[in-house]
Amino acid sequence: MENPAQNLRVDSARLWNSLMEIAEIGATPAGGCNRQALTDEDREGRDLFVRWCRDIGCEIRVDRMGNIFARRPGADNSSPAVITGSHLDTQPTGGKFDGVYGVLAGLEVLRTLEDNGIRTKAPLELVVWTNEEGARFSPAMVGSGVWAGEFSLEYGHSRADKSGITIGEELERIGYLGTEPVLPRAIKASFEAHIEQGPILEKQEQVIGVVTGVQGIRWYDVIFHGMPCHAGPTPMEDRRDPVQALSMLCERLYREVRAYSEDARITCGDLRAAPGSRNTVPEEVVLALDLRHPIPEGLNHLHGSLYRLAEQVQEETGTRVEVREEWYSPPVAFDENCIDAVSRAVQTLGYSNRRMVSGAGHDSVYVSRVAPVSMIFVPCEGGLSHNEAESAEPGHLEAGCNVLLHAMLKAAELA
Amino acid sequence: MENPAQNLRVDSARLWNSLMEIAEIGATPAGGCNRQALTDEDREGRDLFVRWCRDIGCEIRVDRMGNIFARRPGADNSSPAVITGSHLDTQPTGGKFDGVYGVLAGLEVLRTLEDNGIRTKAPLELVVWTNEEGARFSPAMVGSGVWAGEFSLEYGHSRADKSGITIGEELERIGYLGTEPVLPRAIKASFEAHIEQGPILEKQEQVIGVVTGVQGIRWYDVIFHGMPCHAGPTPMEDRRDPVQALSMLCERLYREVRAYSEDARITCGDLRAAPGSRNTVPEEVVLALDLRHPIPEGLNHLHGSLYRLAEQVQEETGTRVEVREEWYSPPVAFDENCIDAVSRAVQTLGYSNRRMVSGAGHDSVYVSRVAPVSMIFVPCEGGLSHNEAESAEPGHLEAGCNVLLHAMLKAAELA
Repeated sequence: MENPAQNLRVDSARLWNSLMEIAEIGATPAGGCNRQALTDEDREGRDLFVRWCRDIGCEIRVDRMGNIFARRPGADNSSPAVITGSHLDTQPTGGKFDGVYGVLAGLEVLRTLEDNGIRTKAPLELVVWTNEEGARFSPAMVGSGVWAGEFSLEYGHSRADKSGITIGEELERIGYLGTEPVLPRAIKASFEAHIEQGPILEKQEQVIGVVTGVQGIRWYDVIFHGMPCHAGPTPMEDRRDPVQALSMLCERLYREVRAYSEDARITCGDLRAAPGSRNTVPEEVVLALDLRHPIPEGLNHLHGSLYRLAEQVQEETGTRVEVREEWYSPPVAFDENCIDAVSRAVQTLGYSNRRMVSGAGHDSVYVSRVAPVSMIFVPCEGGLSHNEAESAEPGHLEAGCNVLLHAMLKAAELA
Repeated sequence: MENPAQNLRVDSARLWNSLMEIAEIGATPAGGCNRQALTDEDREGRDLFVRWCRDIGCEIRVDRMGNIFARRPGADNSSPAVITGSHLDTQPTGGKFDGVYGVLAGLEVLRTLEDNGIRTKAPLELVVWTNEEGARFSPAMVGSGVWAGEFSLEYGHSRADKSGITIGEELERIGYLGTEPVLPRAIKASFEAHIEQGPILEKQEQVIGVVTGVQGIRWYDVIFHGMPCHAGPTPMEDRRDPVQALSMLCERLYREVRAYSEDARITCGDLRAAPGSRNTVPEEVVLALDLRHPIPEGLNHLHGSLYRLAEQVQEETGTRVEVREEWYSPPVAFDENCIDAVSRAVQTLGYSNRRMVSGAGHDSVYVSRVAPVSMIFVPCEGGLSHNEAESAEPGHLEAGCNVLLHAMLKAAELA
């Protein structure tokens, strides 16, 4: 049977205009976005999203983690839904595409179906997940994590930002503490469109990344316990200097991680010294560390290096080095049928493409625990992300959105 | 001629009780003091000091940098004064003795003279210098620095803390923006008593350090300019990671400084990463660096190492390493006559002692530019300072105060 929707395409200009309109909320002077989770800017972005979904007749539900579900009924509403979505929150100096592209690509799919009067058998749902970034509230992906059963609701509500304000308090304040239970309903398939956030597609001149899984991630706080003393009189050999211990550990760990494998990643995103006075050896330095690898053995290896080097540095310097494990997201393999639906859509549409593993964590990681999942990547300029200069080409964004449309249609079937 | 005051001794209990009373202002749960410059706590400490001085008949002057001068007239008030003093401000997690001991030792000297009806030829002045620590406002020793002509008054007033509040604003707010010009009058001699802030006297079981000079100090901000990108997808070789550059520079610099000489010091008191999100490579890391050496050639050598290694790391990593010079205090040699006055007092009193160079900067460094100066050190427990556990023995504090008394009497002469 020929697919009567096979010539259907999304409206590239409408997708781009929506991206630019929402980017004005939390816009930074350098051209990026600062729309951190559950701030006033996040509320404004959510409100705009909800208005757009209602304009095309979607029914809105908000759960107790603030996750938003916009539903487009199908011909058979007893059928499990086909879902898509991502997040609207950004890094403090984030860009215009990370997360929001996945949400607005889903919106553009629903708008295109609406314009063309196309009805699916299975209902479609478009989701906005709360606090994907983990920038304001640790850990990342906490909205999808509670929903998928990785975290309790209480844990989700109690996550606090640096000033001690919790997710629960902020959800209430901005009006997104919904009443729905935070539980997955039956799901037929899930797709998430996203910019690659890396340079591979661009370098290899491929338009679409068919995503087969996600790197494993481990987050740590490494605490160096020093002995405060005056910068002048105390002889160097009598000191326990946490910055010296930090520099020894990091210097070795970067070297080991880079030597181990091309796929290994080490990132030290934050550093804090207390009390932080120039002429006093700090009492404590805290390093926020992120290690990643696509396969379990690789991530275990990096984990082992960290502990071994921490012990080594502690022994050499007499400065206590404490490793606290903050979060672990094991490597994930996506669903073969969903990957196949994406592959077929790409082939039908004739886009250049490659299969790839995501280096970044995504809400799809948690969604994959309770539903069949795959993702669709498009290139971003210079591979830059988590950066105000983050950029993507309209033609690539359109291509990813067309792939999403046809993958969802394949999974939901025409009525 | 026999000195009729040679058996004069200070009141050890009164000195100790005054130290403990003022330590209650800004007391921390861990037993230290947080009385940072020009805070409400600093004002309270200053008020108590002024009351104590007025109780023994001193005349109080406050200059436009908030430096406080308590004057005890002599028989010949046209004579240059003999001065002593130190500071009342502390580090954020400071102790009970750094600075305040020098102020209250001077007060105890004046009280002892008053009790015994002893009159000097030269007038005596007891000084509290503003913002010696440099913890809240950079640079350190700014009150004595403006007074001695190292900085302009405008520069002094415009120094801002991390929240942008200036010294000028805070002086006005706490009521210590005096009317006196910030200028030295003629001075016969200056002495400053202080805890050693290092472990040498304690280790060598000496009661008094006769201080012959002060180490040279250089302060820098070292800025590592990274390129923000996402922690996962970006391959390591495509990154400009400021934490990796920082760790390479520090690892090498600590090694070089320690290998160069036992007298060399390196301290990294503060570290800040921006934007400070765990899963983003930072855009910038700022390191507050303090290098010290007792002789000019030594300090120049360390300065050269820093620039050479910064360039080396920049070349190896592609991450720009910017060195900003914040402050320079050259090595200082104190006045031979003042050192001699201290030495003779120590011998008269029979205390064990050694000559030494101060590792810490002190207001006496700037005072030495316009007046003959020496200092008197007493041991502190474990050499600890800039630490809430900072501690000193009452007997040692008493000894230092007796030395101060007799050095001042020698310089001021009995009427």
